[in-house]
Amino acid sequence: MSINKLLKPEKIVVIGASEKEGFGGDTCRNTIEIMDKGRYYFVNPKRDEVFGEKCYHSVLDLPEKIDLAVICTPMKTVEGLIEDSAKMGAKGAVVFASGYGEVGTKEGKDREASLKKLCEKHGVSLMGPNCAGFINYIDKVSSFAFISNKRDRSGKVGFVSQSGQLVLSMMDRPGTGFSYVISSGNSKIVTMEDYLNFLVDDEDTKVIAMYLEGVKNHGEFIKALDKANRIKKPIVILKSGKSEKAQQIAASHTGSLSGSDKIFDALFEKYGVIRVDDLEELISTSQAIATLGEMPRGSKLASISLSGGETGICADLGEINGIEYGTLSAETMRALKNTIPPYASPNNPLDITASLSYDIDKFATVLEILMEDSNVDMVSVGYTLLDEIADNAIYYMYEAMKRISKEEWAKPMVMVPFAEMSRNVDYVDKLKAINVPVLPSAQYAFKIISNLLKTSAYSYSDNEFINLNSKAFDFGKTGEKISLSEYESKNFLSERGIKIDPCRLAKSEEEAVQIFNEIKKKSGNNNAKVVAKVDSKDILHKSDIGGVILNLKTEDEVRNAYNTIIMRAREKCPDAKINGVQIAMMSKGGVEIIIGVKNDRQFGPSILCGLGGVFVEIFKDVSLKIAPISKREAVGMIKSLKAFKLLNGYRGSKACNIDSLADLLVKISEIAIQEKDKLLELDINPVFVNEEGVSVADALVVLNR
Amino acid sequence: MSINKLLKPEKIVVIGASEKEGFGGDTCRNTIEIMDKGRYYFVNPKRDEVFGEKCYHSVLDLPEKIDLAVICTPMKTVEGLIEDSAKMGAKGAVVFASGYGEVGTKEGKDREASLKKLCEKHGVSLMGPNCAGFINYIDKVSSFAFISNKRDRSGKVGFVSQSGQLVLSMMDRPGTGFSYVISSGNSKIVTMEDYLNFLVDDEDTKVIAMYLEGVKNHGEFIKALDKANRIKKPIVILKSGKSEKAQQIAASHTGSLSGSDKIFDALFEKYGVIRVDDLEELISTSQAIATLGEMPRGSKLASISLSGGETGICADLGEINGIEYGTLSAETMRALKNTIPPYASPNNPLDITASLSYDIDKFATVLEILMEDSNVDMVSVGYTLLDEIADNAIYYMYEAMKRISKEEWAKPMVMVPFAEMSRNVDYVDKLKAINVPVLPSAQYAFKIISNLLKTSAYSYSDNEFINLNSKAFDFGKTGEKISLSEYESKNFLSERGIKIDPCRLAKSEEEAVQIFNEIKKKSGNNNAKVVAKVDSKDILHKSDIGGVILNLKTEDEVRNAYNTIIMRAREKCPDAKINGVQIAMMSKGGVEIIIGVKNDRQFGPSILCGLGGVFVEIFKDVSLKIAPISKREAVGMIKSLKAFKLLNGYRGSKACNIDSLADLLVKISEIAIQEKDKLLELDINPVFVNEEGVSVADALVVLNR
Repeated sequence: MSINKLLKPEKIVVIGASEKEGFGGDTCRNTIEIMDKGRYYFVNPKRDEVFGEKCYHSVLDLPEKIDLAVICTPMKTVEGLIEDSAKMGAKGAVVFASGYGEVGTKEGKDREASLKKLCEKHGVSLMGPNCAGFINYIDKVSSFAFISNKRDRSGKVGFVSQSGQLVLSMMDRPGTGFSYVISSGNSKIVTMEDYLNFLVDDEDTKVIAMYLEGVKNHGEFIKALDKANRIKKPIVILKSGKSEKAQQIAASHTGSLSGSDKIFDALFEKYGVIRVDDLEELISTSQAIATLGEMPRGSKLASISLSGGETGICADLGEINGIEYGTLSAETMRALKNTIPPYASPNNPLDITASLSYDIDKFATVLEILMEDSNVDMVSVGYTLLDEIADNAIYYMYEAMKRISKEEWAKPMVMVPFAEMSRNVDYVDKLKAINVPVLPSAQYAFKIISNLLKTSAYSYSDNEFINLNSKAFDFGKTGEKISLSEYESKNFLSERGIKIDPCRLAKSEEEAVQIFNEIKKKSGNNNAKVVAKVDSKDILHKSDIGGVILNLKTEDEVRNAYNTIIMRAREKCPDAKINGVQIAMMSKGGVEIIIGVKNDRQFGPSILCGLGGVFVEIFKDVSLKIAPISKREAVGMIKSLKAFKLLNGYRGSKACNIDSLADLLVKISEIAIQEKDKLLELDINPVFVNEEGVSVADALVVLNR
Repeated sequence: MSINKLLKPEKIVVIGASEKEGFGGDTCRNTIEIMDKGRYYFVNPKRDEVFGEKCYHSVLDLPEKIDLAVICTPMKTVEGLIEDSAKMGAKGAVVFASGYGEVGTKEGKDREASLKKLCEKHGVSLMGPNCAGFINYIDKVSSFAFISNKRDRSGKVGFVSQSGQLVLSMMDRPGTGFSYVISSGNSKIVTMEDYLNFLVDDEDTKVIAMYLEGVKNHGEFIKALDKANRIKKPIVILKSGKSEKAQQIAASHTGSLSGSDKIFDALFEKYGVIRVDDLEELISTSQAIATLGEMPRGSKLASISLSGGETGICADLGEINGIEYGTLSAETMRALKNTIPPYASPNNPLDITASLSYDIDKFATVLEILMEDSNVDMVSVGYTLLDEIADNAIYYMYEAMKRISKEEWAKPMVMVPFAEMSRNVDYVDKLKAINVPVLPSAQYAFKIISNLLKTSAYSYSDNEFINLNSKAFDFGKTGEKISLSEYESKNFLSERGIKIDPCRLAKSEEEAVQIFNEIKKKSGNNNAKVVAKVDSKDILHKSDIGGVILNLKTEDEVRNAYNTIIMRAREKCPDAKINGVQIAMMSKGGVEIIIGVKNDRQFGPSILCGLGGVFVEIFKDVSLKIAPISKREAVGMIKSLKAFKLLNGYRGSKACNIDSLADLLVKISEIAIQEKDKLLELDINPVFVNEEGVSVADALVVLNR
């Protein structure tokens, strides 16, 4: 749906225009302040004039067609006014009224459905209901209901929020500039996906900032992320719902089901979206990106401050936020030694001492030396930009940064203050003008620096993406869930090209012995050992009932094992349907890894890899990616695990064959995509990984029927 | 050393008084502004007047005795001026000059040593060198070198910092109030311990905030922490050095060796000190404590905000910071339901909707309902205190909080804004006056709330403390390090009352068999198995050379194992001194736990407990405490581990005997204290923990000779 008439209207009408405090009055005040005369009309049946401007009694009385109706009146009047506005040509509407889906009652939901139907009938793009409107700073259009002091807020960040209160909290913050500010309200008619798509296409928007509670059309959402990713337009998203509590709250707020939060994480990671934890981080990350002339070209930071104390803080916060301080070259170290005072030590992070903050030339020289080092992609300057205290350092530092910023070889710079609420706002603006964002105080600042550097390190070509034609994205409904037994699960995998160690199902002790001998023969090892396991989809924890017997070396042992297992299974799980006893070659062992597939009905299948065995739930040392994944993504998943140390040769043990584990992950992700309509869940726990390769020791498949 | 004459002088002299920018001029300006006439003198050989006040040519010309000399002149003049000042009665001196120990050269260190000697000779307490002086807001004394705008900064936080730049960064921040602000400089003469001790004793100081790079006299430091803890005076410390980079920087900055950072963590935990990660957190945590009328009485939070979006952020940030949202009682939920609008849902964190922010009575009612719930110890109110935007909510909310704050049953309240640099400073002051601190933006705010709640949950009586008489705290020097073999280490433990499973050292295969039979007999189990292990202090990784053979059941197996082990050890470690082969009863197994003792020469012994085996270094799932520890501390250590899930009965397995593990930890900590002069290191890895108890499977003792 094109929402241009909604967000870029030529002419608008404010219905319910007023001079009182509240939606009607505040919207009129903002409209008059922001829009040119002649582009807006006011309507109120009871008034002839509002703030000195003519007020019509009905939309139908307007002298010309309009594009957008801003409806400030209560819920019961809304549908009639949309009918009238549509008659006058409106293809867009903003509805502030609440009492719709967000109330959570059937009546509310019905009202919203009815409103939606009406909008579809007339081809009206509707923002809200239960919203606070928007400002388009590019074309100077306002339908916004919150009054704020006059100040130039135009800029390059397109901001859309499902919470009006968050928009309000943000508007006041100095140093922010927007292309669009949108309070989207319930966003079930024009959806968050639609706004996102609009901002991705919008050339005046350089960065997109979003407060998101949930997504309606997941395919459209992913398509918009994909498009932004391809054209390298950064997206920063605050999505609450990391905690269970937050998920409850979002559900009761705009009625959004936030879905599995970890899948959002995986999705954002794949598409290079920056996820943040609160509003301040959302604003300052997006504003920092908009302010920087260009993004850093790599992920290594150099940091300077004026004292050892501040430099120590920068060192610690760098480590806490996973930031890599580039190792300075010998040449850089020598050059620094010649520039900073003799009692200071070259290092990264670097204490240049307060004396250099009063010397434009030397300060500029330090910046230049650092930027010349190929192990530095961005420079952070730690200083509090004091407002009240008579300290002229900021003047000298600013002049030095200005000089450097003009150079072709200049690398991105950011400023890091150490206390909040003590910022010289003039210098914030001056620095912004030379592409240097002033970040919030240090703990935020280093989180934001980490966001920027991670974004720079993101590589589109490392990732494999789902084919986004609509059919590929139709995950259908879940029917009946069918669990397979281990043996059936292994067969499911084997049929799809996954190598499974020799195993077969025995239905009698004779057959068990026969399989044992076959496996021994096949392995070419006369001392080969087998394991016997009860096979039943009804017995999930086989070991718990004594249904697994390891290290069988002789026919007698195999025979006894068969009988013992059948006896125990019958005794402990009398209702289980038992397929037989699986006889499988004993694995050589290795590091126990878990591989999983979870097929989200909205976002499609995702792949999990982590330390397996009993530690899965204790350390949650796992990595999750949306399928399909590339080999690089697979290797990245493995390397991101803490258990990577175990795989990579720990305490003198041989390094495991990580390549074959990565191949297995890629192959599983391909199966997950091919079988997306059928395969609901897969758990391989464990797959043993050793220096030779991988061996699937147990598997559980759940199918959709 | 009493430093009262330094920090609470009646009369002071500023030497090097001037009207120029710089130390001399800025110090004079501050002195005139803050101190009463007649309490200060100016000295400068070249001036007769400074800012219209009489200026003497020498300290010796002063008409009366003085208590404190503030020396603004360069390094080479300092010693002579201290001599002169001492003649005039000065028992305190502040020295701004640099060029001493912080330079890192021998000359610098010698100069500092000489200065120290001189001060000791004359009984002068010296602040600095390389410092920025102090302000005593209680008695109105200033020796401070940084100019700031006139504003009332008096309050209850005593702040001492080893970095002058950090003091500067902080002074400008609105809403802060101090009893003392001290820039301590190199702090080798009057030390950080001395300032800390002074502030602990000072009745005007309610909270102590410290930026610390290192400690000189560890015993004095701990004594001061101990005293503060006993009188419940909160201490907040920013100590950089969590990262290796920061440790390097601190070492090159004031020449402080920061020591093992984890020991500081353990020390702070034991004494209830709040450790923070940057300056902003240091200021706002200490100011919040000073502002609160009383600390929360427990650790459960209730949070309210005006929108679902903000409430979601609070939920997530609560979880990220380990904050417990109290479960509201059915009665509370009912009462809330009757107060908030019908479309809102009672919950914690709670979205009261914006409508309640315009209703004093209802807002106050919500606060009252929450405070009546015994599962709520503190209430946070999320709102951005907007400055520019025409939103009167803050007026209504403030009035409601004011009403509630007067009630006897009121519980502590804090305000949480969602954006920085957009704060209505008038309301910050008004809220401060009713004991409601306004915290920095949300990510900081929830970290600070967590600091406050953790402090409230701290219980002095849960902890065991070292006896702080000076002898107990003399850890002596490390001599030669002597490693014991496993068998000797077990004997060391056994002799001190630790139960060790039956084991003995065999010097021949015959002896090995004899020990095997003894163990079998003793165990009363004819199927008992033993393990054979090479015993040598020179072979640390016994398994790596095949020096451990498990599960020996027969005499022949034991005999073979003995011979094999001796052969392998001779072959692979020809230079190792081999004591023999240890024959030990096979442990029943269980969860592998590591227990360690590390004896820091400054802070004394600390105890470590964590998941053992190969996972020690991979997951670093460990807890560290300063010895001695109480049983409660031991249980707390165990429960703090992620691996606690494994110990506590995982996936239907039986719960381990946690009580006996805790007893073992306490016993080990007692040994560590008794043997503090002798026992440098102890590693028990693993001790097996199962449902029956604990079993020490391997041990390594390192002694001090």
